[in-house]
Amino acid sequence: MVIVMQEGATDAQIQNVIDKLVVHGFDVHRSTGASHTVLGAVGVHRDFDHRDFELLDGVREVMRITQPFKLASRQFKPEGTIIDLGRGVKIGGPEVVVAAGPCAVESREQIHAIAESISKAGAKIMRAGAFKPRTSPYAFQGLGEPGLKLMREAADKFGLFTVSEVMDPSQVEMMGQYIDIYQVGARNMQNYHLLRALGEVRKPVLLKRGMSATMEELLLSAEYILAGGNYNVILCERGIRTFETYTRNTFDLAAIPVIQKLSHLPMWADPSHGTGRRDKVPPMARAAVAAGADGLLIEVHNDPDHALFERAVQRLKRLCDESHVGTCGGTTSAFNSEPLTVDFLPHVGTPHPPRHDSGHRPHRRLLRAGLEKKSHRRSFVRLGSPGSGKGKSSARSV
Amino acid sequence: MVIVMQEGATDAQIQNVIDKLVVHGFDVHRSTGASHTVLGAVGVHRDFDHRDFELLDGVREVMRITQPFKLASRQFKPEGTIIDLGRGVKIGGPEVVVAAGPCAVESREQIHAIAESISKAGAKIMRAGAFKPRTSPYAFQGLGEPGLKLMREAADKFGLFTVSEVMDPSQVEMMGQYIDIYQVGARNMQNYHLLRALGEVRKPVLLKRGMSATMEELLLSAEYILAGGNYNVILCERGIRTFETYTRNTFDLAAIPVIQKLSHLPMWADPSHGTGRRDKVPPMARAAVAAGADGLLIEVHNDPDHALFERAVQRLKRLCDESHVGTCGGTTSAFNSEPLTVDFLPHVGTPHPPRHDSGHRPHRRLLRAGLEKKSHRRSFVRLGSPGSGKGKSSARSV
Amino acid sequence: MVIVMQEGATDAQIQNVIDKLVVHGFDVHRSTGASHTVLGAVGVHRDFDHRDFELLDGVREVMRITQPFKLASRQFKPEGTIIDLGRGVKIGGPEVVVAAGPCAVESREQIHAIAESISKAGAKIMRAGAFKPRTSPYAFQGLGEPGLKLMREAADKFGLFTVSEVMDPSQVEMMGQYIDIYQVGARNMQNYHLLRALGEVRKPVLLKRGMSATMEELLLSAEYILAGGNYNVILCERGIRTFETYTRNTFDLAAIPVIQKLSHLPMWADPSHGTGRRDKVPPMARAAVAAGADGLLIEVHNDPDHALFERAVQRLKRLCDESHVGTCGGTTSAFNSEPLTVDFLPHVGTPHPPRHDSGHRPHRRLLRAGLEKKSHRRSFVRLGSPGSGKGKSSARSV
Amino acid sequence: MVIVMQEGATDAQIQNVIDKLVVHGFDVHRSTGASHTVLGAVGVHRDFDHRDFELLDGVREVMRITQPFKLASRQFKPEGTIIDLGRGVKIGGPEVVVAAGPCAVESREQIHAIAESISKAGAKIMRAGAFKPRTSPYAFQGLGEPGLKLMREAADKFGLFTVSEVMDPSQVEMMGQYIDIYQVGARNMQNYHLLRALGEVRKPVLLKRGMSATMEELLLSAEYILAGGNYNVILCERGIRTFETYTRNTFDLAAIPVIQKLSHLPMWADPSHGTGRRDKVPPMARAAVAAGADGLLIEVHNDPDHALFERAVQRLKRLCDESHVGTCGGTTSAFNSEPLTVDFLPHVGTPHPPRHDSGHRPHRRLLRAGLEKKSHRRSFVRLGSPGSGKGKSSARSV
Repeated sequence: MVIVMQEGATDAQIQNVIDKLVVHGFDVHRSTGASHTVLGAVGVHRDFDHRDFELLDGVREVMRITQPFKLASRQFKPEGTIIDLGRGVKIGGPEVVVAAGPCAVESREQIHAIAESISKAGAKIMRAGAFKPRTSPYAFQGLGEPGLKLMREAADKFGLFTVSEVMDPSQVEMMGQYIDIYQVGARNMQNYHLLRALGEVRKPVLLKRGMSATMEELLLSAEYILAGGNYNVILCERGIRTFETYTRNTFDLAAIPVIQKLSHLPMWADPSHGTGRRDKVPPMARAAVAAGADGLLIEVHNDPDHALFERAVQRLKRLCDESHVGTCGGTTSAFNSEPLTVDFLPHVGTPHPPRHDSGHRPHRRLLRAGLEKKSHRRSFVRLGSPGSGKGKSSARSV
Repeated sequence: MVIVMQEGATDAQIQNVIDKLVVHGFDVHRSTGASHTVLGAVGVHRDFDHRDFELLDGVREVMRITQPFKLASRQFKPEGTIIDLGRGVKIGGPEVVVAAGPCAVESREQIHAIAESISKAGAKIMRAGAFKPRTSPYAFQGLGEPGLKLMREAADKFGLFTVSEVMDPSQVEMMGQYIDIYQVGARNMQNYHLLRALGEVRKPVLLKRGMSATMEELLLSAEYILAGGNYNVILCERGIRTFETYTRNTFDLAAIPVIQKLSHLPMWADPSHGTGRRDKVPPMARAAVAAGADGLLIEVHNDPDHALFERAVQRLKRLCDESHVGTCGGTTSAFNSEPLTVDFLPHVGTPHPPRHDSGHRPHRRLLRAGLEKKSHRRSFVRLGSPGSGKGKSSARSV
Repeated sequence: MVIVMQEGATDAQIQNVIDKLVVHGFDVHRSTGASHTVLGAVGVHRDFDHRDFELLDGVREVMRITQPFKLASRQFKPEGTIIDLGRGVKIGGPEVVVAAGPCAVESREQIHAIAESISKAGAKIMRAGAFKPRTSPYAFQGLGEPGLKLMREAADKFGLFTVSEVMDPSQVEMMGQYIDIYQVGARNMQNYHLLRALGEVRKPVLLKRGMSATMEELLLSAEYILAGGNYNVILCERGIRTFETYTRNTFDLAAIPVIQKLSHLPMWADPSHGTGRRDKVPPMARAAVAAGADGLLIEVHNDPDHALFERAVQRLKRLCDESHVGTCGGTTSAFNSEPLTVDFLPHVGTPHPPRHDSGHRPHRRLLRAGLEKKSHRRSFVRLGSPGSGKGKSSARSV
Repeated sequence: MVIVMQEGATDAQIQNVIDKLVVHGFDVHRSTGASHTVLGAVGVHRDFDHRDFELLDGVREVMRITQPFKLASRQFKPEGTIIDLGRGVKIGGPEVVVAAGPCAVESREQIHAIAESISKAGAKIMRAGAFKPRTSPYAFQGLGEPGLKLMREAADKFGLFTVSEVMDPSQVEMMGQYIDIYQVGARNMQNYHLLRALGEVRKPVLLKRGMSATMEELLLSAEYILAGGNYNVILCERGIRTFETYTRNTFDLAAIPVIQKLSHLPMWADPSHGTGRRDKVPPMARAAVAAGADGLLIEVHNDPDHALFERAVQRLKRLCDESHVGTCGGTTSAFNSEPLTVDFLPHVGTPHPPRHDSGHRPHRRLLRAGLEKKSHRRSFVRLGSPGSGKGKSSARSV
């Protein structure tokens, strides 16, 4: 913690600040400049509120130095987290995982048709809402539990995993019977009761960045879940609010490499909400993968017009296919990962030999694996079977 | 609803859109321009999702015309809502009501000392947190129910009403025993489960604008509560997120007259969070009152230094005092309310003769009443006595 | 300057940074924490680019401590700047000065009619554009020099001063024949060639905050003018860009007390552009005055409808009138200025005794003078008579 | 233009608006709904200010339908603009062009060393500042004309084109002797005098998006240059201002496909300013290319440390190299361009056969050419040789 005193702060004021720092167990270093005195306080404690010091007389500014998140930080797990859903689907691993589906479950017919299409297109996970966070109380709020049942049935039939939004702690246990991944929407990113409830289960949680949340706040919300003991957290950029109105949100793709540097958690991108414009989804999906995204959340609109739906599925297929021929923003690992090596973990000896350094045929591997994005080894987290309840997921094989 | 077709949209595409509009029960008017065709759809239905039409082939843009909120709109109750807490404290009436208190309840000693000070200073309501929405899971999360008990005790002793933040539906009933007004924080403005739970009680709810919420979204969140049957909603501006970093948030004071034009609900301002800078609270509190705020939420910091606390209380006292001599941004009603008359309700006959038009001595009234901000009559809502439980306020006449 | 090293920075990296700091003439203090090393560099030089240090190996962050503006800072002139236009009109003094007028000069008839109206309403300065910065090249760009002539003529007839926007260095000399105050629009706030050209004249410059400019950047742009020798700079808040779309801009009123604390320059507000909504101008004008604004810029629309124009003039009159009976957000000086005393200049002995502490009858003075906002004495700057050309205002004493 | 009347607007008010529209030459269609009347005005004129209608009594909102830019719109030139610099370097063509260089020219030694490095790395254009728009008047403002001479000399020696920032109309002619592309910085995006001056030359202009400019405003600023007769405009995304502070700006990559749909002008990206973080440049450069960028502007820092400079050059080389093996976000043209076909120009018959449809081996071409992004043919603009002066590029065929 660095404390900058006001210009003209008196000796008594400075001494008062120093005394209080010492009481809190800090070592204090004092730098006296021509106009300002700066105090460096060494040994920050986790539950210490640095803002208390902003109120002291003579203090101009207090700057935190250490990151406020611990379990979510890359230091805590330098090799990165991989969440293994089973059947070869690993989130945070070398492949970009695509989740697709409609805004909401509407009927058996609808959800089966979509499940079949996205499964054929190459998606591994079906996303659809049964509880919809709608701005207006008069809008359709989702089918609820019956919708989840329909979704599970369709997903099982076509070999898909499922992700759906949870809105309240009271839904966590019930939803656990039907879904493989809990989604926390942007509006609930700081619903701390919900985050704590999700810290107590072991199924993965896909946590979306709030519309005005900083990257640090996203990581602190993840920290709530991790602190509860659930380490299977996936983060997701979905656009932030800015003055630009042409796109519904401003898709902040730089959040992808930033978060991947700061944290070991997998980082996804949602270009559908990120842009709010159907025709911008393909280029921005590709850009997200090029920026290093570990997965994509694609909304296949429940179009009022069947031709539109078919076009959307074709686009989805092309997106998934491209992943396998290395043309969809596929990255050579050394390129993206180098900054990680250099700027963040310079002290880890000879760290993580880049994947294709192991030998030969880098391009062939690239063409085959397409989206192998990362060079770091990751520790694997094996989850229990689908449908298993809260905290019990010891052997899920979905 | 206005639908703008793309330049070059085909006749078949236009006809397809018209057909679908007719199926939904709209009357359609078509305007054919040199480059664009525009369709006017008359007769919008409340649970209709206009975005479905954005997806149709050939559609460029869909613009909603009617406001999506109904019960919260001023049309629903042109005269404005007044919430009568009892003992002469009326929110939304001619006086600016000041709520003050610490960030969190910490101890009996602390909360009694503050209650005494703010009561003497002129505040009518004590604000303090027992459940704190903290960005970090490691920060102090509040004393919980014991904190509420301490707060109630102190408030009763010094004749104050209480407001405290509720974070989860599971807390609503318990908190109803201790507080007079539920506060919904900025982070929970779109926690719809919580809003619905608060729609079922009858105690007032102070709903704070989210950090990136538009004014329309704030009103839609209020609509959730109103739609549940609880009409005692107070709105509150507390600053939005922008690029400016000198102040913690950008205090959007224009929201006050805008919301008061769009809605009949009382509109408060929280200059403490709105600026995040202690020394900016007094000028921005005054500016908020000048802009027409119905009430103020002032944080009296639980300062680490006693002298600071005393200074804060003195400032609070001056703020409350000024209200009574007409010097704190007091407004002549006709000035602020005129636009309301002219632009919003021109059809209501000869509505609400401006207060001082009735005759004479406008200045004397101004000096005496200080903060009489509005010229419209308001229907009164009489609530039960402070401390009465959930749903009991049967005297409400709205 | 404080330099935070990365976690894991090596001793060699730290020593390298220290060596470079010493070469630049800094004294360096080193704080070694458990995870980070922090270096305090004392003795910052004005033309030193601290970002060069961000690039050094092992550096995580570089934080500037001293303010980058000097001549614009309040330290440079604690008593505040007052710009005396003559005939009793002083900007930055105890009265709020109102400038009003149409968007653009359109014809002799129009500008004379408006000049007469605003003069009767109580405005002291006429604002109108002859060169219009229009987003579209096809929009009306203003009458140019003939427009300025018409404006001067009308202003002289009705005893008004004039302010008009200058867009390019090439216009400075010509415009000096017609206007009393140069206006720099939001789009040109960082047009440094223009700012330098205005540093060479002695007529006042009204510098508007850019749409996405921080307060610090506004002060740095002012510094360009001051550094050229022209100390007669007026700053102006006119709204910033945010996600909120109901108002055209978000009127950041907190900028008023913030700038007044950081700088000695007069700070105005432009509620017309700040809100972009005609009916929100009166409440936000009052809020700006309550927040401490030294002046207001009010656009009296050149309405297509005469009745609207009359209504606007009536509103303007009421606004000016209220200033004189203390009802328009008039402030007791001690209240707003106290933070200035306490937080910013605690070392200046017993500084600037608050105005009404000098004696008696504070309320009477308040009621009479209305907008006496500041308690500090100010040094006066006496300018030449209106209409005098570039660089001639030799009576300036700063 | 669509005009929405207020709820409760009187017949007289509605008729008044209709009358005024008719006077301006519009055809008017009236839609009368239960609560609102909507007027469609057909036949908008270019120099008509729709905001005049917002002021009329009874009008709630005026919505423009037609785009305010004409020459910059894709309709004006559906096939896209290609700017041919000569020696095979075509901006807007199938290859991504990389411009690189230091922030500022500092010395002959420096600029020659950098020119050699970036030329070897594969960049085609050298970027460097001789006039620097610095926030602070005390920061280094650039070497001026001598810097441009050094830059030209170095560029000629190593076969590079040059781009450098122009800040004022007075510099245009002089700079034309030294540079191949004029750069307009973000701060000057709405410096209309400068834009008009650049409309009179024929050398290409690289126009950067302002920090708070919407995409539409960027296109309107381009329109100023185009309207002057200079059609060689390149647009560039460089990050916008948001609340996020981890990155210096928020790099709005969605602007790339949006602008490419709205306009025929080449669209570049500047990941160096877009992120402000050295280690985020490589991933965001790749993401920009994946999103469809026609070119990249990369700052090779003039590092205080030689090892850093070498690393930056290596990264630049890898970025340029990847372009040629299809691994740097290379796109199959059909994918990105499809939306263009479908949503924007459905009426242009069988438009622009995708490039590789002309034949065979699409993937092989993709792998070889890497960054062939677009499928549309483009009309070529041939410019004079580098160094040729203002207005001489007579071979232009646009």
